[in-house]
Amino acid sequence: MTAPLRVGLAGLGTVGAGVVALLEANAGLIERRADRAIVVTAVSARDRGRDRGVDLSRAAWVDDATQLSARDDVDVVVEMIGGSDGPALVLARATLERGKAFVTANKAMLAHHGLDLAALAEAKGVALKYEAAVAGGIPVIKALRDGAAANRILRVYGILNGTCNYILTRMEAEDLSFTAVLADAQAKGFAEADPSFDVDGIDAAHKLSILAGIAFGARIDFASVAVQGIRAVAAVDLAHAATLGFRIKLVALAEEIDGTLFQRVHPCLVPLAHPLAHVDGALNAVVAEGDFAGRLFFSGAGAGAGPTASAVVADLIDVARGEVGPAFAMPTARLAALGVADAAAATGRCYLRLTVVDRPGVLAELTATLRDAGVSIESLIQRSPAAGGGNSETTGAADVYVVMVTHAVRQSAVAAALARMATSASVTAPPVMMHILDYG
Amino acid sequence: MTAPLRVGLAGLGTVGAGVVALLEANAGLIERRADRAIVVTAVSARDRGRDRGVDLSRAAWVDDATQLSARDDVDVVVEMIGGSDGPALVLARATLERGKAFVTANKAMLAHHGLDLAALAEAKGVALKYEAAVAGGIPVIKALRDGAAANRILRVYGILNGTCNYILTRMEAEDLSFTAVLADAQAKGFAEADPSFDVDGIDAAHKLSILAGIAFGARIDFASVAVQGIRAVAAVDLAHAATLGFRIKLVALAEEIDGTLFQRVHPCLVPLAHPLAHVDGALNAVVAEGDFAGRLFFSGAGAGAGPTASAVVADLIDVARGEVGPAFAMPTARLAALGVADAAAATGRCYLRLTVVDRPGVLAELTATLRDAGVSIESLIQRSPAAGGGNSETTGAADVYVVMVTHAVRQSAVAAALARMATSASVTAPPVMMHILDYG
Repeated sequence: MTAPLRVGLAGLGTVGAGVVALLEANAGLIERRADRAIVVTAVSARDRGRDRGVDLSRAAWVDDATQLSARDDVDVVVEMIGGSDGPALVLARATLERGKAFVTANKAMLAHHGLDLAALAEAKGVALKYEAAVAGGIPVIKALRDGAAANRILRVYGILNGTCNYILTRMEAEDLSFTAVLADAQAKGFAEADPSFDVDGIDAAHKLSILAGIAFGARIDFASVAVQGIRAVAAVDLAHAATLGFRIKLVALAEEIDGTLFQRVHPCLVPLAHPLAHVDGALNAVVAEGDFAGRLFFSGAGAGAGPTASAVVADLIDVARGEVGPAFAMPTARLAALGVADAAAATGRCYLRLTVVDRPGVLAELTATLRDAGVSIESLIQRSPAAGGGNSETTGAADVYVVMVTHAVRQSAVAAALARMATSASVTAPPVMMHILDYG
Repeated sequence: MTAPLRVGLAGLGTVGAGVVALLEANAGLIERRADRAIVVTAVSARDRGRDRGVDLSRAAWVDDATQLSARDDVDVVVEMIGGSDGPALVLARATLERGKAFVTANKAMLAHHGLDLAALAEAKGVALKYEAAVAGGIPVIKALRDGAAANRILRVYGILNGTCNYILTRMEAEDLSFTAVLADAQAKGFAEADPSFDVDGIDAAHKLSILAGIAFGARIDFASVAVQGIRAVAAVDLAHAATLGFRIKLVALAEEIDGTLFQRVHPCLVPLAHPLAHVDGALNAVVAEGDFAGRLFFSGAGAGAGPTASAVVADLIDVARGEVGPAFAMPTARLAALGVADAAAATGRCYLRLTVVDRPGVLAELTATLRDAGVSIESLIQRSPAAGGGNSETTGAADVYVVMVTHAVRQSAVAAALARMATSASVTAPPVMMHILDYG
């Protein structure tokens, strides 16, 4: 029998405490699966006195998290502190430098420093594991790293932020504005007091950059992710989308196009026939399209103490089994530095919602503008009046919405048409444009 | 740079040739991910002359597959011969005995001899890998073995046979009988000339017994799987199910109940709100419910040369990376021998279709029989006449169908009611009973 794997745990919030609870609840099963016990020997958190509902009596208390890595009774450090820099990064470097394995759920840190940390782990021959950083309890990192490893991945995309998906799902179901649902979610503790990382798409972009790195064998390039959040999505857009056979989701999408990397987080119309359209509430889902495997679809809980702890402890079982492996599915020296794709050259269908004055000739003017820009229309709905419908926007009393779905078109053409409309006296509010997810 | 991993490949059918094609197409990528090349050095198949559309010129030809394992230029054997015993099993034992890794897609062999082979692999310290044996290109073996390893799995279930799912999907979409769709599928090469392994549920049962072994840390017990195929499903049942808000799927389901193992393959009504209901055509899907991760859902292509090769080569990349690990997620000595669950004690909703004579009082008789057995009815449809509707059954001209969904009830109570009805002069054909999948 191998000696127990001894864990130093930094951070005892909901998720950190969840890791302790899981290791306790499933201790026997974990020992069978890892062929050795996994025990928490030392912990560190800000407030020592707080009751976290778990038994920490057998673990040493360390005031400075950085000291966890130096302890003789710690083989692996689990970091649940958060933040891309600061104490989490100091702890990561110190742990790997000492030749100990490091497990984290910290997507922000990985998006910014993942490559450096992976190179350090490699140099020291130890594991850097982060299953919990993307899509919570869904083992999508292992699925891409190991399960789909034989494939050239054509694209990887999904719903990576549970807060946004929860908000969009409730906006549609209850015909409420973004602001109203966000306030309620904050009151119930489902959304952060400062929701920007979630609702502005940054959290999803962190996760996407990590997925793209593994999927395409590319050096993580968080800076080049085009990011648009869900603040501008109105209930009326959700309703129009439903009428047209779509649901609106915050989709994070990465694709390799001719040796360049296309990465985008954006609210997107998903056809009802696509499985992503039915991923509701706080669930997450990831689609990976392989050249041999075809379309793989994974869904499950994207956040929460239980799912996150499930992913963290899966990593610990890997470590206990002695499975080190390269952090980003291949040695860092083999990762390619891909250029940034030209987003304007991308083609696809678009959803447009225009707020226009209600008078004869306006529709003719709009469609002429689109035609001149080379944008052809697949379907069109005219609705009046523009106000109401749970939408928080204020529009003129005489305004109407014109909603369109275009045929597949270059993004640059749509941009040109919208720029022209912005100068038109008939168009009384900034046009709303969203992409349509057309990957069958 | 580590030396290439040298593969001996037994069997060059569609899937065997697919493995060669994949290793060739993605050679550069695989070398980056595995940190070494993977090359086929020797092959064996029945017909040497056949053109398989792949370049085998650099591989040695071996007439007797068993000899592959003895070759000095073979590090790992890939078995694509098939069959639970015979040459495949001889090759597996010979390879592991020599201390070489063994990769297979052979679910029948694993269901019958997996434990013995795993023990042998363990004793020799080599890998036994079989990702391709269950759900084709979906990396569900790795997901259960590694990704969900921290969880006590409450149940695992899914759609594991693409042929059955293809047949049921077409029967529903085109209102055709089982016999008609099967014949067409055979003519198109989608179904085997002898379809029994698929349509009688045996293939799904093989796969289920493997999944259950990993999920519950149990010794594989194929013999105790209750198996019912799809031959008795009629188009009229698919239509009735749709009216009631369900789709009929061949569901393979395993659950640990108080230390016993419940394993069943059966046509089953899946509520439309459940993601399994939307898995169509030849797709496969697996649901695993973990005590911490919650419900994990995986779907993708369940068969075919590309997806199967994707899974086989993922295993080869594991081997190339030196990841051995126990075949069934824990050392065989730690696997539990679980007893067989009492299926009669299970409770759940049921779908019943009764063929009865069309005269007053029959419905009262039926409902009294059900009441007396303790079966209460949730919804009821009476349709007449019983014949037609794409259904191949022949019933009396005056017969009608009575279709019911029961409330959750013990299986033994339903069985008692059906036994009583079998003796009734009003019931003119054997009642059709199917379970309803009620795992939200």
